[in-house]
Amino acid sequence: MLAVCLHKGAVFLRDQPRPRRPDGFALIRLLCGGICNTDLELQRGYYGFQGTPGHEFVGEVVDADDSNWIGQRVVGEINLACGDCEWCKRGLGRHCPRRMLLGILKHPGAFREFLTLPLHNLHRVPREIPTMHAVFVEPLAAACEIRDQVRIPAGAPVAVLGDGKLGLLIGQVLKAHGAEVHQYGHHKEKLRIAATLGIDARLRKKAPAAAYDWVVDATGSSLGLVQAAKMTRPRGTVILKSTVHGLVGIDSAPVIVNEITLVGSRCGRFEPALKLLRRGQVRVDNLISEVLPLKQASLAFRRAAQAGAMKVLLNA
Amino acid sequence: MLAVCLHKGAVFLRDQPRPRRPDGFALIRLLCGGICNTDLELQRGYYGFQGTPGHEFVGEVVDADDSNWIGQRVVGEINLACGDCEWCKRGLGRHCPRRMLLGILKHPGAFREFLTLPLHNLHRVPREIPTMHAVFVEPLAAACEIRDQVRIPAGAPVAVLGDGKLGLLIGQVLKAHGAEVHQYGHHKEKLRIAATLGIDARLRKKAPAAAYDWVVDATGSSLGLVQAAKMTRPRGTVILKSTVHGLVGIDSAPVIVNEITLVGSRCGRFEPALKLLRRGQVRVDNLISEVLPLKQASLAFRRAAQAGAMKVLLNA
Repeated sequence: MLAVCLHKGAVFLRDQPRPRRPDGFALIRLLCGGICNTDLELQRGYYGFQGTPGHEFVGEVVDADDSNWIGQRVVGEINLACGDCEWCKRGLGRHCPRRMLLGILKHPGAFREFLTLPLHNLHRVPREIPTMHAVFVEPLAAACEIRDQVRIPAGAPVAVLGDGKLGLLIGQVLKAHGAEVHQYGHHKEKLRIAATLGIDARLRKKAPAAAYDWVVDATGSSLGLVQAAKMTRPRGTVILKSTVHGLVGIDSAPVIVNEITLVGSRCGRFEPALKLLRRGQVRVDNLISEVLPLKQASLAFRRAAQAGAMKVLLNA
Repeated sequence: MLAVCLHKGAVFLRDQPRPRRPDGFALIRLLCGGICNTDLELQRGYYGFQGTPGHEFVGEVVDADDSNWIGQRVVGEINLACGDCEWCKRGLGRHCPRRMLLGILKHPGAFREFLTLPLHNLHRVPREIPTMHAVFVEPLAAACEIRDQVRIPAGAPVAVLGDGKLGLLIGQVLKAHGAEVHQYGHHKEKLRIAATLGIDARLRKKAPAAAYDWVVDATGSSLGLVQAAKMTRPRGTVILKSTVHGLVGIDSAPVIVNEITLVGSRCGRFEPALKLLRRGQVRVDNLISEVLPLKQASLAFRRAAQAGAMKVLLNA
């Protein structure tokens, strides 16, 4: 079968045997994969990664212990947790210290014709959701995670800093749950997409100081946190959605003086994401830049890294 | 009257007229003042400060619109708020954007024979609390502020990082409210003080990773936050009590991956601090290094800046 591989910055294809399916796992045929910024970071060597990336996918189950799964169209949670530890028992396998991560850590990713994942990681995709939309479930779950961590009152103004893919998902999720979202970005075209989604889109350079009780940093840049803290009112909350590698210089004095709370936020549960897509409360069609076949993965990675690119999908 | 002044790093005494008492204010004769790390920072020129510092004090009211106050021994909240804005109306004058700060911002401090403060900033000191203990009410209120911001479950293990004055107050406050406090410090003598206060004192270099749901950074150093985040379990909380000026380099990736919450924390209400001192649930006698007369303020500032110094008090 065909598999995408990363090695020392290069993206190449390899022909390799189908993976063996361990007990409790499903063998899944890839239908569609989405290239995430994390994949681009893995390409650049973050975590010393090499191998097959890919953690945003939709597939069809072709083999499983339980034959009811066979033929099902599925998405899959990316944390392969131990199932035994206190975190797993609390339903927080996403923080299991022994976890592996699909396409990131110790478990080969989804950018190959066939992949494996534990059955309990899988969610059936309702028929109302097209495959090219369902591939957004993983990042959309990360956007939904904010609502599992903090309680934003209905009608509260929320600033979402960043108009990239994740920022526009977050803006839609918070709007769907009743917040008054102000989406701040640098890019006129992306802000135009936000506007077509019914979101109040604004230029980031005009963002006001000390104006919001709730600010989400989804800029993906180390300057995002600094600006987000400036925009936050005393006793307000900044949700950190930008994984920036290496040291970020922050001036902690205003965070302390203004008693601001910073909340790190990562992966989320898939259920609320699937519900929002099924009900059409989040739209993703505008967030797709391009769809390329798996065998053009190298080109797809280049396109995804271009300035202004939105989601690039890989079709199998 | 005698007033301590700071100017370009120097601490000197000045003879000046007693301050005029505005309507609604009390004229207060200083009984005792405490030198805080913030005072040492003001001496170094932080905020371009010059003038009379001092925001930890006990005094006696000598003049006020309401004669019931005259003769009362008082402590005073340091934020002089406008009283009209939304923050003031929510009882959070500590965040009033028009506030002045006793001895820090736009209002001369307490290190002078007579000072003024609005009557509504004052709290009577119960007779059970000696003056040299009551002078700790302001930093103790800052320690109590943690409990106004986060709900630490009874019996929860809490790591307090830092064995300085503020750290030892925080350790005692959290212990008094049922937490299992582990106080981490570099200084054997200070950890010995913690032990005499019944606190489990430990060497900071031996602090475990990912071990606590609750960590307080009271190190006063830019490395404190980094270590505190390392000690915190996924989904745990770090309370930031170290005001460090300038940029602090933090690696935000583990904060995001482990979904850690960072809570900036500053001044607090005086009521819980007075209650803890009155009931003897917080002890401060061990936290006093030295008591010097106001006219030896220059020496007192030098002593307060020495490595290993605890609280240096100024007696008037």
